Amino acid sequence: MSQALSTLINHQIRLAARPVGMPKASDWSHTAEPVAEPAEGGVTLKTLALSLDPAMRGWMNEGKSYIPPVGIGEVMRAGGVGVVVASKSDKYAVGDYVSAGFGVQEYITLAAADFKRAGLVKIDLRAGSLTQWLNVLGMPGMTGYFGLMDVGMPKAGETVVISGAAGAVGQTVGQVAKIKGCRVVGIAGGPAKCEWVVKELGFDACIDYKAGPGAVRAGLKEHCPGGVDIYFDNVGGEILDDVLARINRKARIIICGAISQYNNTTAVQGPKNYLSLLVNRARMEGIVVFDYADRYHLAVAEMAGYLKDGRMKSKEDVVVGLQTFPETLLKLFNGENFGKLVLEVAQG
Amino acid sequence: MSQALSTLINHQIRLAARPVGMPKASDWSHTAEPVAEPAEGGVTLKTLALSLDPAMRGWMNEGKSYIPPVGIGEVMRAGGVGVVVASKSDKYAVGDYVSAGFGVQEYITLAAADFKRAGLVKIDLRAGSLTQWLNVLGMPGMTGYFGLMDVGMPKAGETVVISGAAGAVGQTVGQVAKIKGCRVVGIAGGPAKCEWVVKELGFDACIDYKAGPGAVRAGLKEHCPGGVDIYFDNVGGEILDDVLARINRKARIIICGAISQYNNTTAVQGPKNYLSLLVNRARMEGIVVFDYADRYHLAVAEMAGYLKDGRMKSKEDVVVGLQTFPETLLKLFNGENFGKLVLEVAQG
Repeated sequence: MSQALSTLINHQIRLAARPVGMPKASDWSHTAEPVAEPAEGGVTLKTLALSLDPAMRGWMNEGKSYIPPVGIGEVMRAGGVGVVVASKSDKYAVGDYVSAGFGVQEYITLAAADFKRAGLVKIDLRAGSLTQWLNVLGMPGMTGYFGLMDVGMPKAGETVVISGAAGAVGQTVGQVAKIKGCRVVGIAGGPAKCEWVVKELGFDACIDYKAGPGAVRAGLKEHCPGGVDIYFDNVGGEILDDVLARINRKARIIICGAISQYNNTTAVQGPKNYLSLLVNRARMEGIVVFDYADRYHLAVAEMAGYLKDGRMKSKEDVVVGLQTFPETLLKLFNGENFGKLVLEVAQG
Repeated sequence: MSQALSTLINHQIRLAARPVGMPKASDWSHTAEPVAEPAEGGVTLKTLALSLDPAMRGWMNEGKSYIPPVGIGEVMRAGGVGVVVASKSDKYAVGDYVSAGFGVQEYITLAAADFKRAGLVKIDLRAGSLTQWLNVLGMPGMTGYFGLMDVGMPKAGETVVISGAAGAVGQTVGQVAKIKGCRVVGIAGGPAKCEWVVKELGFDACIDYKAGPGAVRAGLKEHCPGGVDIYFDNVGGEILDDVLARINRKARIIICGAISQYNNTTAVQGPKNYLSLLVNRARMEGIVVFDYADRYHLAVAEMAGYLKDGRMKSKEDVVVGLQTFPETLLKLFNGENFGKLVLEVAQG
């Protein structure tokens, strides 16, 4: 199989400039390279699908964060799923399905020494489909699961509010919270997402933040009459302030992201209601999924069980074509994606 | 002794209006009443000294908080120390020293049913002086101790930063953190307070936030080269943002107050660097001292030991005269007080 590699071209999308505000076409460059043969112990992987995530916007910025920024001229960082097309490793065989940090490109050749850094692991398509491995069984699912369980520490009967409820992380958080016996209220944009979150995923209610000024405040009042015990925040901004105004004593706020603030060209808007933490002896805590890597397999096993017995559903929004990456990414920031945004690079 | 009560006048200071911004003279009214005889089981207390605290500003505002606001026309709420001058209780004898919620007045008569609500407890002047019972052995000391120990969870070798370092809470936090083996960096206003915090209290360093723009940022860089593990925040505003920019992984931020924001007539300034909590998997948590009431005696015993063996010092800023209350309170908000602000109402 590996003989054929030399005839293949690896199309890539690289970060050409640090975006100011919303990323634009000129922030990217398109390149093509031959596919490298694997070294002894290494593998070559073919990208099948990539995960497009809000966190990508942060990786494009200069400065200290939980991982270094993508360098100018580097292939854009992206997690994905794919298949082994050449192997000089005794751990991976041609045809094995894997999850790894592929980058926004069609192929990647990894040395054995890079397997760990790239997060290379085999995936079992009996536990979930390729796209589910980017969603509920992948990074977003792990983020939602460990954020809710380890930082949120839900107790049955508590009220859990989730922003970005129809997104990849939000759908996992809400469904797990329901399974754990909580009352679950989502916040999402538009009636279609809200209806799906309630009817398909079984949330108790969903607030449409696009329904007009004050919609979130009014919705929280209506749907959380007993206050909010856990808030899983993917968006920041005004919505975070609205929820802070309704938290209960000893509430836990999980800071997973702040998608409303990622493309700001001005300073981030801090939560002006943060003193509600004081009044309510409440906690606001950040979560980074990588910290839980040694327990991913446990969450995957638990959630694969829920997928199998029908207690958990997943929805992916699949866009086809590596070259569409620059525009497809923007769907995350204007709220256009409906479900986990996936870029299909090749057929599995 | 109680026969004499009828001849005594109880001067009081009442909240006349809800202040807008900094409280002014017309927000208060001065009243005088005869001193009431205690009912069967009750006591009459003479106020000796009152604790003046930043939290008082919050009690003057309408709206939900951790305790109800002081009503218009009510005697202003204040904790204090005093002496029993009449007793029909078998638990308290004339001459006993006590701590309680006296209010800003010269006497208070309590029914037995009110003892608990008023927080009436005997104090032992062998453990500390009257003013120390309003400081390190009182509410500020308890706030600092439990905030640091229960929310901050300091480990030896960690770096602890404290704003309002020369204030009542700050001096306790810093000295306890030193005793627990931490590196301690204060933030205070002016060279005199900073010098005192380092030379008298033994902090490792103190940053003068009044030293000019950027002083806190530069000071944190200089004095916390390894980052900040615990931040005990009494002030909010820009300083909170400056510290957020330098926290370490798994840092704990204790939100005890936000004195920079209490007299705002515009919205509170939210911490625009709050996403540092995400990047650093850090936590911001509010503390209200009353939650620890059943463990006050343990902290008092521990800190009385430190006072006795000289490992802990206390400084009170004593102003004499009940009638000075309206102006004296303002010292807290313009940073004029140096040490725990105490209003001496009568000689002990």
